[in-house]
Amino acid sequence: MAEIDVLVSEVGPRDGLQSITRIMPTAAKKAWISAEAAAGLREIEVGSFVPAKLLPQLADTAEIVAHARTIPGLTVAVLVPNAKGAEAAIKAGAHKITLPLSVSETHSLANLRRTHEQVLAEAKLIAEMIKALPTSERPHFEGSLSTVFGCTLEGMIPDAQVARLAESLMAAGCDEVGLSDTTGFADPAAVKRLITLVKAAAGDAALTGIHLHNTRGLGLANALMALECGLTTLDSSLGGLGGCPFAPGASGNIVTEDLCFMLAAMGLRTGIDLDALVAVRSILAEALPGEPLYGFLPDAGLPLGWKDAA
Amino acid sequence: MAEIDVLVSEVGPRDGLQSITRIMPTAAKKAWISAEAAAGLREIEVGSFVPAKLLPQLADTAEIVAHARTIPGLTVAVLVPNAKGAEAAIKAGAHKITLPLSVSETHSLANLRRTHEQVLAEAKLIAEMIKALPTSERPHFEGSLSTVFGCTLEGMIPDAQVARLAESLMAAGCDEVGLSDTTGFADPAAVKRLITLVKAAAGDAALTGIHLHNTRGLGLANALMALECGLTTLDSSLGGLGGCPFAPGASGNIVTEDLCFMLAAMGLRTGIDLDALVAVRSILAEALPGEPLYGFLPDAGLPLGWKDAA
Repeated sequence: MAEIDVLVSEVGPRDGLQSITRIMPTAAKKAWISAEAAAGLREIEVGSFVPAKLLPQLADTAEIVAHARTIPGLTVAVLVPNAKGAEAAIKAGAHKITLPLSVSETHSLANLRRTHEQVLAEAKLIAEMIKALPTSERPHFEGSLSTVFGCTLEGMIPDAQVARLAESLMAAGCDEVGLSDTTGFADPAAVKRLITLVKAAAGDAALTGIHLHNTRGLGLANALMALECGLTTLDSSLGGLGGCPFAPGASGNIVTEDLCFMLAAMGLRTGIDLDALVAVRSILAEALPGEPLYGFLPDAGLPLGWKDAA
Repeated sequence: MAEIDVLVSEVGPRDGLQSITRIMPTAAKKAWISAEAAAGLREIEVGSFVPAKLLPQLADTAEIVAHARTIPGLTVAVLVPNAKGAEAAIKAGAHKITLPLSVSETHSLANLRRTHEQVLAEAKLIAEMIKALPTSERPHFEGSLSTVFGCTLEGMIPDAQVARLAESLMAAGCDEVGLSDTTGFADPAAVKRLITLVKAAAGDAALTGIHLHNTRGLGLANALMALECGLTTLDSSLGGLGGCPFAPGASGNIVTEDLCFMLAAMGLRTGIDLDALVAVRSILAEALPGEPLYGFLPDAGLPLGWKDAA
């Protein structure tokens, strides 16, 4: 596979779909993932192993993982809320497992009904579970620090708490930590500050990726700052699915199409074909008629004289 | 007046209003400018001295300048297409005069019906006209390089042409040059490249400001890069007025509210009160019912726990 500069990790099939109430048919999910992988995406978070009664939208995750695993070169990522979910993810054959740890303990209790210590204990269980596997079968294990830029329940989050929990996740056995702007509070200065902080606390190699939302329109500016700080993995969602920035409380992942356009315009290689990527929107439009899709590139098109760097 | 780190220059009354066909009543324009100045804006481009039959939306510019001049501490800026427009601007008492020079000569011919040499000759005439005034009455004179990031008629624009014309504008007697992403082709890497280039060609002090559009969603990322490159003046438009990013050919200035939020979140002082700024939208909504207003901050609101740095 050709070398790339930035790994764009599509999270729409998980974060996008869990944010809308409608359920996308399994066949459409498979078509979406296949088409996006064919457009050049190398990592897709395809679902979450949570109880189906909590997130019926993602009840078919095991089947989706099985499908995604048949796509050559694709890293199949999933979210898990705990060790039980990780067990199912391993059984399904996910290549990457992400466990969120909300730095806002109020949010952690509200969302996962667990304290920090309880989530860290789950992280330890998952790391042990993975270590017991043959090397070739071990999934990559990420601890994702959520609400790091602020919380809709607690407000501002102390930097020291982010640093401490980054260290704790690595100590619990994670392969890496991630930063997540769950609430859309991030700004470029905070992105820079927290990346510097977490790298100092948990080690430079411990942090390579960030998960940004576009709630207040700063998503791509924050992504630019993350790149400038040396991060190389950026999460985004096709069409910004699931996040209506104009609805109260909605989140809104950064839009994969616009992110990929920015990266390509800057001469950064992603391996992604922009025209093919934009074309994948039709699968979403057909499977979820009326669901709003965001993004500027699909409407504005590529600039005249455009030379694709990807 | 309190010190600021970044000068946000509101261009909505000129760029916004010239991009829509409806005509805003003079009284509403005055109310808009007064309210935005009261919210802390220190520079507003209030209109353009062009023939009324070409831009009837801006036919009342002289009256608007007279009104804006009564606001203490406000820099009253106008656009002029030529020396004749500059004469009217000086007569009206504008504090700042901007002459656009389109680096795409095709665009220059289509837009101003003038070659580069003809525009430079106008710049020279304007500089002489200003020099003939008593020092205290001299407006600041900016030559704005437009279509520098690419042109919808010519496509990509050679860097060397941008550098050459920046030098020529300064030699013609401009106090400074500006960069303008007229067509929404800019990306952060190009912003960095062109700022470096123009500063090298025309002098570090010759370039302090940039005019960005959000056509492809990169507006705030481009603004961030401009800040990182040391620019201190950013143009924007309240509500992104006049630029529908979802209509073909539309331009879309970056949104003043979102820009000011980003700057404040980063701890950069603008002197602008965000709540008061957002409240000014109601003047636009009332005077131009049905006209779309953009921006994320007005819908998402300030993050919980927000401490204003402005």
